[in-house]
Amino acid sequence: MGHTLNTNAGYIARELAELGIPSYRQTVIGDNVDRLLLQIKESASRSDLVILTGGLGPTTDDLTMETAAKAAGLPMAFHEESYRALTKIFERIGRVMTENNMKQAVLPYPAEILPNTNGTAPGAMFDCPAPNDEDPQHAASLILLPGPPSEVVPMFTLSVRPILEELAPFRFRTAYVHLIEIGESAAETRVLDLINAQINPTIAPYASEGSVCSV
Amino acid sequence: MGHTLNTNAGYIARELAELGIPSYRQTVIGDNVDRLLLQIKESASRSDLVILTGGLGPTTDDLTMETAAKAAGLPMAFHEESYRALTKIFERIGRVMTENNMKQAVLPYPAEILPNTNGTAPGAMFDCPAPNDEDPQHAASLILLPGPPSEVVPMFTLSVRPILEELAPFRFRTAYVHLIEIGESAAETRVLDLINAQINPTIAPYASEGSVCSV
Repeated sequence: MGHTLNTNAGYIARELAELGIPSYRQTVIGDNVDRLLLQIKESASRSDLVILTGGLGPTTDDLTMETAAKAAGLPMAFHEESYRALTKIFERIGRVMTENNMKQAVLPYPAEILPNTNGTAPGAMFDCPAPNDEDPQHAASLILLPGPPSEVVPMFTLSVRPILEELAPFRFRTAYVHLIEIGESAAETRVLDLINAQINPTIAPYASEGSVCSV
Repeated sequence: MGHTLNTNAGYIARELAELGIPSYRQTVIGDNVDRLLLQIKESASRSDLVILTGGLGPTTDDLTMETAAKAAGLPMAFHEESYRALTKIFERIGRVMTENNMKQAVLPYPAEILPNTNGTAPGAMFDCPAPNDEDPQHAASLILLPGPPSEVVPMFTLSVRPILEELAPFRFRTAYVHLIEIGESAAETRVLDLINAQINPTIAPYASEGSVCSV
């Protein structure tokens, strides 16, 4: 409906860039099992890593965890540790735990469960077999995180970043060169020989109000 | 790289919701011909309408217009009216028009060209034949708009909205019911009979800091 600005996509893209992991595609899908299942399978078949945010809540329209497990061919199982963490949260805030909250302790098995220090929904990481034309044995790592940025940021920092740091053998370095009052196309004309010769580094002209940058 | 917050996606989603046009998917792709071409073909094959923003600038990494024309099987042709509009802009701002600016007057043919009142890049609307399993004659309408929100909003309002208004036979109405200090899952439990019975209207529980909404 366009009511929520997707700040998670930008945050994760910046983190991946810093980690030296190229990210090629971001997709937004509503809370619909069929479209979500199809999307996870598509994404997994063309990627090594698929990071999902949102849809891990306790209510009936939160269906990302079950749908991702289905895509990966994994059963859902009661996760004792997550259940204990949930009951502690409800004790602390003095609220009654309703039956639908229990859903957040039922997770794909086997999977690496990512604790949520700032909310009730744990995340998870597991493999999703998704053969493609190049590799009949291809599988992608799925990482599922909740939707609220206040939960995504600490979980990424504490649990996801350390895992990805081990996988990524190099880092991106970026620099902005600001060109003021010249115009994007005029700026490009001046550095076209560099742009055409580029392999490493990559140069991209970018215009914003009041300035033009070359990254 | 995550440096640009995609506010266009939210703006267009809100406009489509108001127009009564269901939008099911948003995808972000970098300035790469192969991935962009594949994405346009995929999107066109499963949709009736595909709206693209960005990549209409004058520089070498702006390749959306040519790539969309290629997906639709259309040639690019010099567009006299857009060329005149371009020269006027450069006269007005007193800058020299470089050769790469000319690119913005070379557009798919035939197409409906959408004038840009707030920048140099015109938009375009044209059909993209994209057969799918259900319909071997399927084609999607592609609408291409520039990237800067200061250009997207007036172009959508002046050129796109009137076209879509004719196509959309009904309107969405939405209402937020705010439930404070109750928790998303407890809120859902109270209205679960309504959620399970829903066909029209659609009800979705949504938690944000300090409140829970049912839409």
